[in-house]
Amino acid sequence: MTMTAESICADIARIREAAPLVHNITNYVVMNTTANALLALGASPVMAHAEEEVEEMTGIAGALVINIGTLSRSWVAAMFKAAGRARDLGIPLVLDPVGAGATPYRTKTARDLIAYAPPAIIRGNASEIMALAGQGAQTKGVDSADPSAAALEAARRLNEETKSAVCISGEVDYIVDGEGVIRVENGHPMMARVTGLGCTATALCGAFAAVNSSFTAAAAGAMAVMGIAGEIAAEGSKGPGSLQVAFLDTLYRLSEEDMKERLRIGGQS
Amino acid sequence: MTMTAESICADIARIREAAPLVHNITNYVVMNTTANALLALGASPVMAHAEEEVEEMTGIAGALVINIGTLSRSWVAAMFKAAGRARDLGIPLVLDPVGAGATPYRTKTARDLIAYAPPAIIRGNASEIMALAGQGAQTKGVDSADPSAAALEAARRLNEETKSAVCISGEVDYIVDGEGVIRVENGHPMMARVTGLGCTATALCGAFAAVNSSFTAAAAGAMAVMGIAGEIAAEGSKGPGSLQVAFLDTLYRLSEEDMKERLRIGGQS
Amino acid sequence: MTMTAESICADIARIREAAPLVHNITNYVVMNTTANALLALGASPVMAHAEEEVEEMTGIAGALVINIGTLSRSWVAAMFKAAGRARDLGIPLVLDPVGAGATPYRTKTARDLIAYAPPAIIRGNASEIMALAGQGAQTKGVDSADPSAAALEAARRLNEETKSAVCISGEVDYIVDGEGVIRVENGHPMMARVTGLGCTATALCGAFAAVNSSFTAAAAGAMAVMGIAGEIAAEGSKGPGSLQVAFLDTLYRLSEEDMKERLRIGGQS
Repeated sequence: MTMTAESICADIARIREAAPLVHNITNYVVMNTTANALLALGASPVMAHAEEEVEEMTGIAGALVINIGTLSRSWVAAMFKAAGRARDLGIPLVLDPVGAGATPYRTKTARDLIAYAPPAIIRGNASEIMALAGQGAQTKGVDSADPSAAALEAARRLNEETKSAVCISGEVDYIVDGEGVIRVENGHPMMARVTGLGCTATALCGAFAAVNSSFTAAAAGAMAVMGIAGEIAAEGSKGPGSLQVAFLDTLYRLSEEDMKERLRIGGQS
Repeated sequence: MTMTAESICADIARIREAAPLVHNITNYVVMNTTANALLALGASPVMAHAEEEVEEMTGIAGALVINIGTLSRSWVAAMFKAAGRARDLGIPLVLDPVGAGATPYRTKTARDLIAYAPPAIIRGNASEIMALAGQGAQTKGVDSADPSAAALEAARRLNEETKSAVCISGEVDYIVDGEGVIRVENGHPMMARVTGLGCTATALCGAFAAVNSSFTAAAAGAMAVMGIAGEIAAEGSKGPGSLQVAFLDTLYRLSEEDMKERLRIGGQS
Repeated sequence: MTMTAESICADIARIREAAPLVHNITNYVVMNTTANALLALGASPVMAHAEEEVEEMTGIAGALVINIGTLSRSWVAAMFKAAGRARDLGIPLVLDPVGAGATPYRTKTARDLIAYAPPAIIRGNASEIMALAGQGAQTKGVDSADPSAAALEAARRLNEETKSAVCISGEVDYIVDGEGVIRVENGHPMMARVTGLGCTATALCGAFAAVNSSFTAAAAGAMAVMGIAGEIAAEGSKGPGSLQVAFLDTLYRLSEEDMKERLRIGGQS
């Protein structure tokens, strides 16, 4: 697959036209942020987590996004109900295993969800992806000069197990599927000083997966849009407060020229 | 009743002077947003949802705002406790039936709340109001060239049943009571790209209802302030991120000149 | 202890270098705000409240921040588990008794937490600190021309009982310990129109307590940074919306010159 600015912009146009409903079961910290990012891009977010209604809400959505950032028992029960419905109806599920590896509760919840309903896309940072692939221990032996090698190996194993497009985000973002690896090199260091931009990337993966059945392309498109909007926003910002504001403005106004001028994507899948 | 910029500004002045406590049981997405909007306008927000304390919190408040945007079982129980206390003490209750019609759980919760403690004001979009009035099915036969007719009819029926001032928000906002219909024509299309501005309108209805015992006037005043602050904010904004920031600044600085210059209100009640 | 701009800046430098993990069990309204403030200052926030994992999360943190702003039963259970672990491991606990005095549930929860695991720092407004010290009734007789006298007496009693550094925030912030009282006179009135800045002050106390074992100095440093960043932000803002944005930008860029030029600190401890 060859990703280009044009192919990503075609997906953005589809999102803006169809305004797909993205059902989010996400964490408290980022609910407002991710809803606003989905709206700014052109999608229609809904947040709902009650066991009484999540299956119906997933049933009318174009994608389901599950993020375990502030999980607890009743939320986990709702995540399983919604994920099961998404699996049964063929609605793409995007999983953000926030904090996998930090506590056993998070690692186990994320792994159990994956086994119950294999996601279309799994997006996390390197340590989260390694925790999901059960490579916490092995990674200690990896050359620290190339920290991504262990993460990429973990992503490959996770893809073999789940068939999910596995996205590792960081200074460079990697999207791993059964065919290869795509690298997205956009972004800005100040983005790490804003909470929830990783979770926002996951939410945007949901919007792209609702309009593009190649989940690799959907994940790569979402990461490119995040990185490019982040760059543009950061360049005009005095700090992380104005970055956040400008990020939403930029998502709303993102043009094909912006994408063509800035897209730095490589590898193949 | 005749609403004027002067009468609305008199209510704003009362809010700024008395800083009424507005008790919100609202959704996770907008808690921060609605608290900030209430503060910017001059009211005192408090968020509390524990069954152990909601009755006491409502008891010291000037208004209670209930919003079912991210409802779940224990929150619904707290909503009923607080609503019952508001009813018993004559404290105005403002209800936002977010997502009524999208799932049976939401429709039923909103309808049960209304039956248990008739609100001073119900504020929703057209489909939510129609769902509450049980008109989901009938609306299919209505002329799509005039979508508001069915919503207005639903609002009238809901007002007959509850005596609530019923506010339908959209490109034009309608406030329906037993006497007639008031139209507020302020606002800006970019407001639809910011999450929680509908919920913010509901919260501001709470602030106005705390200082004006005509709930029709309170709802109309809140919608006018929302629309005018939104217009001013949008005109100086590059996108929905800066709109949000400018909206709070504008609420804080809103003047009688702004209101007189921009208010577009009509109809009668 | 003598607090200077230099000593506070040394703590800021330590936070920026070590990026201590601050575990927050806080309220829904401010989760995003406080996470962003911690990131802007240079710390690493984590939010986690599930009983299944809070002990492990506290165990890897440099400080634990508990804020009862939107408490409910299962959250309170998690707060006790986390506080117990912090106590056992010697990890500093910072408590924000939001709304203590407003409902018995809040007052009792805060007092029980303090008895179970005496905090390193307790930060609240005057009425909250008085409620914790059991002085709600007595304060009615206090001369209203000097409202801080009763609050300072309450803080002294609370410090005797708990050994906590007790911070009363307001137009002037006071930090009371067994040795004396420190006054921080920075800040701006418009800060009262932004929700969650008190909670943000508490979160920053956590970051400072993670790098400075004098909790009096940690609390005073956090309050000075809050006040100075708030002043700088407010001076360039049109209202509370832009203040919030500029506050995060200022925390991110805060320099030793800013601190030296603006710090207004007095008293001794």
